[in-house]
Amino acid sequence: MPDDTVALTERSFKRLRKIVGRENCTRRPEDLVCYAYDATGRKVLPDAVVFPATTEEIACILTLANEDRFFVTPRGTGSGMTGGSIPVQGGIVLTLNRLNRVLEIDRDNLVARVQPGVITGDFHRRVEAEGLFYPPDPSSSAFSTLGGNVAECAGGPRAVKYGVTRDYVLGLEAVLPTGGIIRTGVMTAKGVVGYDLTRLLTGSEGTLGIITEITLRLLPLPEAVSTMVAFFDDLRIAAETVAHIIRAKVIPRTIEYIDNAAIRCVESIFAMELPVVADAMLILEVDGTEVANAAAMARLTDICRDKGASEVRVAKDKTETDNIWRARKAISPALYAYGPDKINEDIVVPRSRIPDMVTRIRELKNETGLFMASFGHAGDGNIHVNIMLDKSDPVQAEKADRAVDALFDHTVALGGTISGEHGIGITKSAFMRKEVGRAEMALMKNIKSVFDPRGILNPGKIFAPD
Amino acid sequence: MPDDTVALTERSFKRLRKIVGRENCTRRPEDLVCYAYDATGRKVLPDAVVFPATTEEIACILTLANEDRFFVTPRGTGSGMTGGSIPVQGGIVLTLNRLNRVLEIDRDNLVARVQPGVITGDFHRRVEAEGLFYPPDPSSSAFSTLGGNVAECAGGPRAVKYGVTRDYVLGLEAVLPTGGIIRTGVMTAKGVVGYDLTRLLTGSEGTLGIITEITLRLLPLPEAVSTMVAFFDDLRIAAETVAHIIRAKVIPRTIEYIDNAAIRCVESIFAMELPVVADAMLILEVDGTEVANAAAMARLTDICRDKGASEVRVAKDKTETDNIWRARKAISPALYAYGPDKINEDIVVPRSRIPDMVTRIRELKNETGLFMASFGHAGDGNIHVNIMLDKSDPVQAEKADRAVDALFDHTVALGGTISGEHGIGITKSAFMRKEVGRAEMALMKNIKSVFDPRGILNPGKIFAPD
Repeated sequence: MPDDTVALTERSFKRLRKIVGRENCTRRPEDLVCYAYDATGRKVLPDAVVFPATTEEIACILTLANEDRFFVTPRGTGSGMTGGSIPVQGGIVLTLNRLNRVLEIDRDNLVARVQPGVITGDFHRRVEAEGLFYPPDPSSSAFSTLGGNVAECAGGPRAVKYGVTRDYVLGLEAVLPTGGIIRTGVMTAKGVVGYDLTRLLTGSEGTLGIITEITLRLLPLPEAVSTMVAFFDDLRIAAETVAHIIRAKVIPRTIEYIDNAAIRCVESIFAMELPVVADAMLILEVDGTEVANAAAMARLTDICRDKGASEVRVAKDKTETDNIWRARKAISPALYAYGPDKINEDIVVPRSRIPDMVTRIRELKNETGLFMASFGHAGDGNIHVNIMLDKSDPVQAEKADRAVDALFDHTVALGGTISGEHGIGITKSAFMRKEVGRAEMALMKNIKSVFDPRGILNPGKIFAPD
Repeated sequence: MPDDTVALTERSFKRLRKIVGRENCTRRPEDLVCYAYDATGRKVLPDAVVFPATTEEIACILTLANEDRFFVTPRGTGSGMTGGSIPVQGGIVLTLNRLNRVLEIDRDNLVARVQPGVITGDFHRRVEAEGLFYPPDPSSSAFSTLGGNVAECAGGPRAVKYGVTRDYVLGLEAVLPTGGIIRTGVMTAKGVVGYDLTRLLTGSEGTLGIITEITLRLLPLPEAVSTMVAFFDDLRIAAETVAHIIRAKVIPRTIEYIDNAAIRCVESIFAMELPVVADAMLILEVDGTEVANAAAMARLTDICRDKGASEVRVAKDKTETDNIWRARKAISPALYAYGPDKINEDIVVPRSRIPDMVTRIRELKNETGLFMASFGHAGDGNIHVNIMLDKSDPVQAEKADRAVDALFDHTVALGGTISGEHGIGITKSAFMRKEVGRAEMALMKNIKSVFDPRGILNPGKIFAPD
């Protein structure tokens, strides 16, 4: 990357204010603090924060950044798990919050056009009110943005049946790091004209362009949803049950796994009368017609009991279902009760290897003595391993680093990947070489240079310094 | 692109023979003819044809091509519709037919690993025998290869419910134009490590790398499939029925549209007692449980009758279903009865605009007096417009060119795309600018240069000369 980029000058700041208006550009310390962090808990202050309202303003900002050589870090609501929106090398934070409109919901063609700042959960409610369905549902959906979801290729619990964000992005409008505005993809169900720039931008973590409009595919809302939880005395058996469900060719929309530490954490907050002695629990959810769901729930109950579940509870109504999900989505933030710092990993292994993986996680927990809680989207083989610690304690920090290293090694050895849905950002860039070869890495860096020859957009992400 | 590439020299030919063995490298005229064409009917003789057996041999060939400056055009079985495997600038044709093994079918993880030369239809049978399902089903599946399907991002009739080839490719092994071997993507359900090279290669029409291994996602085989056909006196009403089905939130796995000319063509071959007076027919197919299918078929029958279908026939058994599909898949080749040359377009419009599109196609038919047959995947808005003509007649050729131009203009005006599943190749590159802007095109060309700095792989495709 070019190294002639400088801190934001007085002159650049004034030019930025001209583009977005004085009230939409700030460098007051109390404002900078609000845009310095994400869900990793790390903080780096930007030189300024700008709040553009249109694609054209963003294009002007990036053109200026190229001319004046300052860094630009795009930001949704800062809910990312790997530092993607942290301005690690200074420059400006460019927030997308003012681009927050649902532009169109096309019921005839099952397509929506949205701006990147729309909150995912708000969008869910909007489309569901029209009898439509947008499956991607990251646990952060109450506050994360659709733009951030696309930039990270967010997943969530429904991916077992419905896939991830990538599978719903038909087309994009984006501003290139050099200031040009591009439109990629289609507004139709199919399209193969030229290279797939849409999916190249999806999951590129805000390093190739700033997404300013998203065309999303929708589905009809399923007629009914049924949810159950199953408890197990042994986490290995819970993990084997996941593989067994898939092998039995039942595809629930959700198979979530929650270990004992996470169960206790949930119970301490919500008092749901969960059996805190259980070693693990699964949340299974199916959707479809009422009749089909009833048959699937009966089948899943049988499978869980056959495999040795100590207890199975089927949610009786929407309130019970909502309670299960409120508890599930609260785990990640609630873990801070167990330590001031969190290392949240996001590994994926082939579903049949989940028993091996949870066994290894338990070993690492025993070896290090650190507090660890695991939960996640077991139906995809996607386990979130959370280590809670005090990073100011060098002994704990060193043990945690070694545990993460061992975890990634085991993941790759099992044929897995070190990130299922959180991306690489800054927290995993040092580990990327465990999975991605030298030739593949060189291609990615060269693609970055094609889009961003001066390296001004979201620097310091994905690619570790050589 | 660099212009120092030369014809294959005697020395290069000898070196190629050393890599693959004398018997797997030919320049006999009678062999060259067999690898000069594809389904467009165009022909360009290569200088030689090589038949490598391994990824390593392919890597050596591409390294040599870079050193000795000759062009390489990869080829599956030559069933492509846009000239992707035609060696338009000479050099060698590299066929993938010897890389034809199914390497693994992992029933526990619903994943398969295959070599690119596996015939798609053979793969369907292999996985279905194990109770699994690979949805992409291009009409050419009896002879097209999985590698070719990935290179073009093939679609087919089941995309309405199941998406296209892209949605099933988890990871790839490929040989870069410079001779390096890369592995992209994952073997798991999720994965977001670095840029999405997997989907960048998918649909890149053999211009960015030669795919040597494919990791595919599988699904459980649906319990049952039900198929029906509905006939309409007015093609516009048939087209409106498609939009109506989607609007009613019924998602069959297939909604195929066939116009009168194509019905007559089928009937002339198969004598299926189709009403040849019908202006259009739809093939509707649902899958799922027997009970759910019966309910869906009843609903679809009601919708078709309400909209004014003149006749509805539900297939009584597998034989009747197979007959319907044999007829449908035979349309494209059978059209040659109506003219020695075919222009086969592959436009997509938003589903709600299909009535506008079929009306415009009828106008073009009346205006030009050319034989045109339209059919295709109406559930995706994907209509194959076939113009049969004698290209040696300049009047016909000129009329056809104008019709295609008008067709593409109308497609783009309706918010559609000029290619849903056939790609750009050589036949559509002149029209790509109608849909893709200058900045987007520049990005694509620069990406091509990153992968293939000397421009030796599959030259003359996608990008029209400036």
